[in-house]
Amino acid sequence: MLTVLVIDESRSRAGEICAGLALAGYQVAAILAGSENLTAEVEKLQPDVILIDTDSPSRDTLEHLAAMNKDMPRPVVIFTQEDGQETIRDAVKAGVSAYIVDGLDPKRIKPIVEVARARFEDTQALRRELEETSKKLTDRKLVDQAKGVLMKARGLDEDAAYHAMRKLAMERGQTMAKVARDVIDMARVLL
Amino acid sequence: MLTVLVIDESRSRAGEICAGLALAGYQVAAILAGSENLTAEVEKLQPDVILIDTDSPSRDTLEHLAAMNKDMPRPVVIFTQEDGQETIRDAVKAGVSAYIVDGLDPKRIKPIVEVARARFEDTQALRRELEETSKKLTDRKLVDQAKGVLMKARGLDEDAAYHAMRKLAMERGQTMAKVARDVIDMARVLL
Repeated sequence: MLTVLVIDESRSRAGEICAGLALAGYQVAAILAGSENLTAEVEKLQPDVILIDTDSPSRDTLEHLAAMNKDMPRPVVIFTQEDGQETIRDAVKAGVSAYIVDGLDPKRIKPIVEVARARFEDTQALRRELEETSKKLTDRKLVDQAKGVLMKARGLDEDAAYHAMRKLAMERGQTMAKVARDVIDMARVLL
Repeated sequence: MLTVLVIDESRSRAGEICAGLALAGYQVAAILAGSENLTAEVEKLQPDVILIDTDSPSRDTLEHLAAMNKDMPRPVVIFTQEDGQETIRDAVKAGVSAYIVDGLDPKRIKPIVEVARARFEDTQALRRELEETSKKLTDRKLVDQAKGVLMKARGLDEDAAYHAMRKLAMERGQTMAKVARDVIDMARVLL
């Protein structure tokens, strides 16, 4: 059963939302009045989805969302009256998966949450792919640089420099990138 | 003024949507009954946004969208009755920026289109970053490989191999990656 963390400044609307969530077959993890301790609450409650109802998402709320999106990313649905272009862009940049203006209708909650979850998964996959590719590129640059250091310092050819690092990595049970980082740092002190 | 390409299987609903778009201050680029020639139509009309109204997006429609998303990406808004989880996921994967179930209300069109545009820009930026990073990684691998070929073939050291390729790249007005590709291919024939 999917659990939803509800953040609502209004008690009565929070009740309406919880009814909609129950109808949709979701479980309410908790109802908060504000987003101050969002990351900590998400860590504690481990909800599957965050649902925020607010007249207008404040700068603080968007900052809390961006922080959570970095440390404990979750699909976020915002129901709001605020339709300003800048707020919409800022919300999307903060990682909001569904930004719904004037559309809080309890019987539409389920498809909205489902779309938000699909969107979230899609974006996370893209983000992971970017992280992995960036890491590969950084690692490769590091290993190349360290190889150059070894070739110059010990008069090794490229293969020999690579194998010297490979051997050290295996002995230490470390990645090539870690060994490369150490080679570069230590050469600075030792040579 | 933002132009919107409308695809609607129903004439009467298309009329309602066009009224909503006019109210929101958007211009209708064209109304199509289906998505068969989507990429060609987008190339011809250069709309800012695609808006699709359909009872249920068919497999064909999603394929046309995915193809357009590859060649001529545009923000896509779908209004539909179909709330199946699988269709939602497939639509998001096909590049749909806003998937709205049972929410075709002409006065809500403007914020929906704005959210779709913001989402689209955000995803495109992420996608571009991934493409650039992947290309850097591939280029670097190619240049490394070509450097290895030159070092072995001509007994050059790493610096000399790099500078030989750099010189050739400048003479030919080509990228290092292109020269590296040629070095690798030609070494296979020449050596």
